[in-house]
Amino acid sequence: MPGLTIGDTIPNLEVETTHGKIRIHDYVGDGWAIIFSHPADFTPVCTTELGKMAAYAEEFEKRGVKLLGISCDDVKCHMEWIKDVEAYTPGCRVTYPIVADPKREVIKLLNMVDPEEKDSNGNQLPSRALHIVGPDKKVKLSFLYPASTGRNMEEVVRVLESLQKTIKYKVATPANWKPGEPVVISPSVSNEEAKQMFPQGVENVNLPSKKDYLRFTKV
Amino acid sequence: MPGLTIGDTIPNLEVETTHGKIRIHDYVGDGWAIIFSHPADFTPVCTTELGKMAAYAEEFEKRGVKLLGISCDDVKCHMEWIKDVEAYTPGCRVTYPIVADPKREVIKLLNMVDPEEKDSNGNQLPSRALHIVGPDKKVKLSFLYPASTGRNMEEVVRVLESLQKTIKYKVATPANWKPGEPVVISPSVSNEEAKQMFPQGVENVNLPSKKDYLRFTKV
Repeated sequence: MPGLTIGDTIPNLEVETTHGKIRIHDYVGDGWAIIFSHPADFTPVCTTELGKMAAYAEEFEKRGVKLLGISCDDVKCHMEWIKDVEAYTPGCRVTYPIVADPKREVIKLLNMVDPEEKDSNGNQLPSRALHIVGPDKKVKLSFLYPASTGRNMEEVVRVLESLQKTIKYKVATPANWKPGEPVVISPSVSNEEAKQMFPQGVENVNLPSKKDYLRFTKV
Repeated sequence: MPGLTIGDTIPNLEVETTHGKIRIHDYVGDGWAIIFSHPADFTPVCTTELGKMAAYAEEFEKRGVKLLGISCDDVKCHMEWIKDVEAYTPGCRVTYPIVADPKREVIKLLNMVDPEEKDSNGNQLPSRALHIVGPDKKVKLSFLYPASTGRNMEEVVRVLESLQKTIKYKVATPANWKPGEPVVISPSVSNEEAKQMFPQGVENVNLPSKKDYLRFTKV
């Protein structure tokens, strides 16, 4: 199946949402956005996920990230369901818009279809896809999870922190990295440049190849 | 860009690896597999990731999951680099095969290209993609991470546990779920059936809609 993947520009669709009509590029603006689908309103995992997204809203807001939910239910259904979501996650308000895509046009264009899931009429349903979109409107990172597996907002915050840090500095984040831990310096930076660029200190790892490519710093 | 996505059958390619020629479907066999790409040998994040994968090998093995790495470097380069990987993560052996894809054929077919990354000759490089493939040879879940962001093996183990549990029982795992925590019962199971199916106990959550769809149990 053809599908949106990392590096692609997110289609500039006009979509119907719980906050009225939205044009996706205008919504992303000059910041970041997380566009995430859920299979259906009034279903268990989705209720826990949308509540959790609301609970993490402050984490996303302080990083300049907007949220945009999406499923194939209509706006009226979303509005009714939000009451359940908010009741299940006390103190959390769903302040982000949720797209209504009853014709399955948006989920197809955004690579958000779970081919294993159908509604009672045999219509396609969304997967638990989540795309992180940068200020250039390109997909920077994607999670493609099936209906059975709820996402992990801790991992979403972790990768967002990595994406934003690695755009700002010439670094990358190693395996299992957590915010605050050391990062690695990009291979494009020479040892001389690294000294200038990271006066806080660089730790070079001695490897059997004697190639000096594994260098840690803190940013 | 067209690309492999969840629900698709992984192409049954014959690939060149550090363990000789492998046909992908034969390698997956009747079990599970994690197929994961890295941008290049002798680069920092990749070295931490392949070592971490080796460190988690026991976790994967006890779940019946095989590992298959991939980058565009050749087999000789992989073999040299493995010495660095093993030195950096002491006590870990890279016992899984790594595909050599200098012609970029495999990474294109497996949706593992990072369009932002090029080598010094202007050739395409892989992203940090990771597909979990089930015994039916279909992609169950995918991570599409860019070169800058190392993956999180804790999240890989978490979703694997979810995928294997939700195939075995009529349940799904809620947002931020961790192995051992309660799961939710699938909407297709009636309350009567749930009592029979989960004699260990079912907790129904009371929601404003009074729709009885959020039900927890332990499996």
